[in-house]
Amino acid sequence: MPTNKIWYLRKRPIGDVSAGDLELVTEAMAPVADGMVRVRTIYLSLDPTNRIWMSDMDAYLPPVELNAPMRGGSIGVVEESGTDAVPVGSLVNTGLATWALYNDLPADAVNVLPSLPGVPLTAFMGPLGATGMTAYFGLLDIGAPKPGETLVVSAAAGAVGSMVGQIGKIKGCRVVGIAGSDAKCRWLTDVAGFDAAINYKTEDVGAALEQHCPDGIDINFENVGGPIMEAVIARLNDFSRMPLCGLISTYNADPEANTGPKNFDNLLMRRTKLQGFIVIDYLDRFGEGAAAMATWLMEGKIRYETDIVEGLEHAPDAMARLFTGANLGKLVLKVSDAPA
Amino acid sequence: MPTNKIWYLRKRPIGDVSAGDLELVTEAMAPVADGMVRVRTIYLSLDPTNRIWMSDMDAYLPPVELNAPMRGGSIGVVEESGTDAVPVGSLVNTGLATWALYNDLPADAVNVLPSLPGVPLTAFMGPLGATGMTAYFGLLDIGAPKPGETLVVSAAAGAVGSMVGQIGKIKGCRVVGIAGSDAKCRWLTDVAGFDAAINYKTEDVGAALEQHCPDGIDINFENVGGPIMEAVIARLNDFSRMPLCGLISTYNADPEANTGPKNFDNLLMRRTKLQGFIVIDYLDRFGEGAAAMATWLMEGKIRYETDIVEGLEHAPDAMARLFTGANLGKLVLKVSDAPA
Repeated sequence: MPTNKIWYLRKRPIGDVSAGDLELVTEAMAPVADGMVRVRTIYLSLDPTNRIWMSDMDAYLPPVELNAPMRGGSIGVVEESGTDAVPVGSLVNTGLATWALYNDLPADAVNVLPSLPGVPLTAFMGPLGATGMTAYFGLLDIGAPKPGETLVVSAAAGAVGSMVGQIGKIKGCRVVGIAGSDAKCRWLTDVAGFDAAINYKTEDVGAALEQHCPDGIDINFENVGGPIMEAVIARLNDFSRMPLCGLISTYNADPEANTGPKNFDNLLMRRTKLQGFIVIDYLDRFGEGAAAMATWLMEGKIRYETDIVEGLEHAPDAMARLFTGANLGKLVLKVSDAPA
Repeated sequence: MPTNKIWYLRKRPIGDVSAGDLELVTEAMAPVADGMVRVRTIYLSLDPTNRIWMSDMDAYLPPVELNAPMRGGSIGVVEESGTDAVPVGSLVNTGLATWALYNDLPADAVNVLPSLPGVPLTAFMGPLGATGMTAYFGLLDIGAPKPGETLVVSAAAGAVGSMVGQIGKIKGCRVVGIAGSDAKCRWLTDVAGFDAAINYKTEDVGAALEQHCPDGIDINFENVGGPIMEAVIARLNDFSRMPLCGLISTYNADPEANTGPKNFDNLLMRRTKLQGFIVIDYLDRFGEGAAAMATWLMEGKIRYETDIVEGLEHAPDAMARLFTGANLGKLVLKVSDAPA
């Protein structure tokens, strides 16, 4: 029998995730049941939304229960199979599984990854994964970009933001990104093709937006919340759109201390359309989104970075990188090796 | 020469409008120019948005300049005409004119009112006027009500809110109104046909919403802002809609003290579509809206109240009724008599 390693949620974090909130447990595994597949995790996806799942807030999914395995998405290889539909050796996306070395999942819950020439496995965690789909549907469905419009994206060097900006460029927008280091800003302008990037840690975001958005802001793809969001809202144009994708600046904060944007009234004055969305709402259109993103990727129009941390035991520490601004691109945890 | 009486904006109000912010001036009038009409005001429309126009905020229209006549919409009768297109005696809607006994306006800027059997002139200030159109387009275009859904409307006994709820009933919604007195709440349920009404001055709004919206809230037609808005946002359903029509609780407040809703993040979690709008954005569709509203009115499906204050000299005092919750239905100032 193989043994499994599973991260259990033991306490609901207050503020930052800390030692003792989760526990890594080694367990024996039962045989694989009929109709199930045993997936060995290669890459575990680490995302800001993981922090939401650890809280008992009324979110878009129920919170992870205390003393249950932590929820997460991953890519892995099928090591044992209880069905002919998904043979051993298949590379699959698990959808929502757990933070574990192995996940036993119903065969119809996993998606076998297509083989695309020149596209590495990490792309299925980024542009072709949930974060890529988040960018694709949030920007195109809600943001409705038109050529010549100005798009601002916060957390721009993150997994979602970096895709949003590049899709915006493909659609003919002026694209301005907000990120947390000069290195990230250079990547945005020099590699990802953004028109401008603002380092919110060293620049006055409002003044920089004035400079880089001379015609105002038509689309605010919002990932962050807080004062950065207020600076963007203050410069929205009439009939602007605001896909509300995330509020990462608030996830670790005291819920009682949260406030909405002080200039909320500008959403009225500017007749802004703000729409919250969660990528799982678009599950039935992932095929469309992945096909478009794969085409752009193979045409060289989409660049992406993967920030890889190795070792299942580092999952909580690695997740902290999302909130300190340490990571560039998609943060993944490499749990085990891909097949040769 | 007739003399005119005009309210000039002298100071930008801080908090409530007070004596000295405006001044009523008597002036001689020049002859009516070619292509212009001289409209004697019968009813002057008093609306929360007037308060916005007095401030120097970056709103949807430029502020009224200091020492300029106060902006306002009205209904009147043409007393002199410099064009055959609009003869003397015509009853017209002035669009945006001023707080004055007489307005000289380009003939193509006024709309001659149709004569509808059994429909009094005040209806053109209410269901068939800007507030009716605000309700019609905000609810139907943005709120997109479906039969069986739950609609909550704040400032429900006001000119806009009372129309929103009744249109919601026509569209098959469960309609819950929030208003500021037991008398208003009785009018909402007994006359306007709302399913329930909540007196925010005497009831716990959150608890009352729990009681009256057992299936949650699908549409929040927002007129008010502040804690009432937060109580509604807390109970929104997934994929809810929130036409953002007004934020009257904030207009007289210290702008620095304003905050957005503390539970702004719920707009993300519930994937709410919030959209700010201003009725003038729908000007080119007023024909459609007015036809629908006139039909419902003549069928007896729409009830409305007009809160009439007499005398141009009372304009600022009358406007205060909007912010104290004193008025039921559309607040208008009767400035002079309609033709017999």
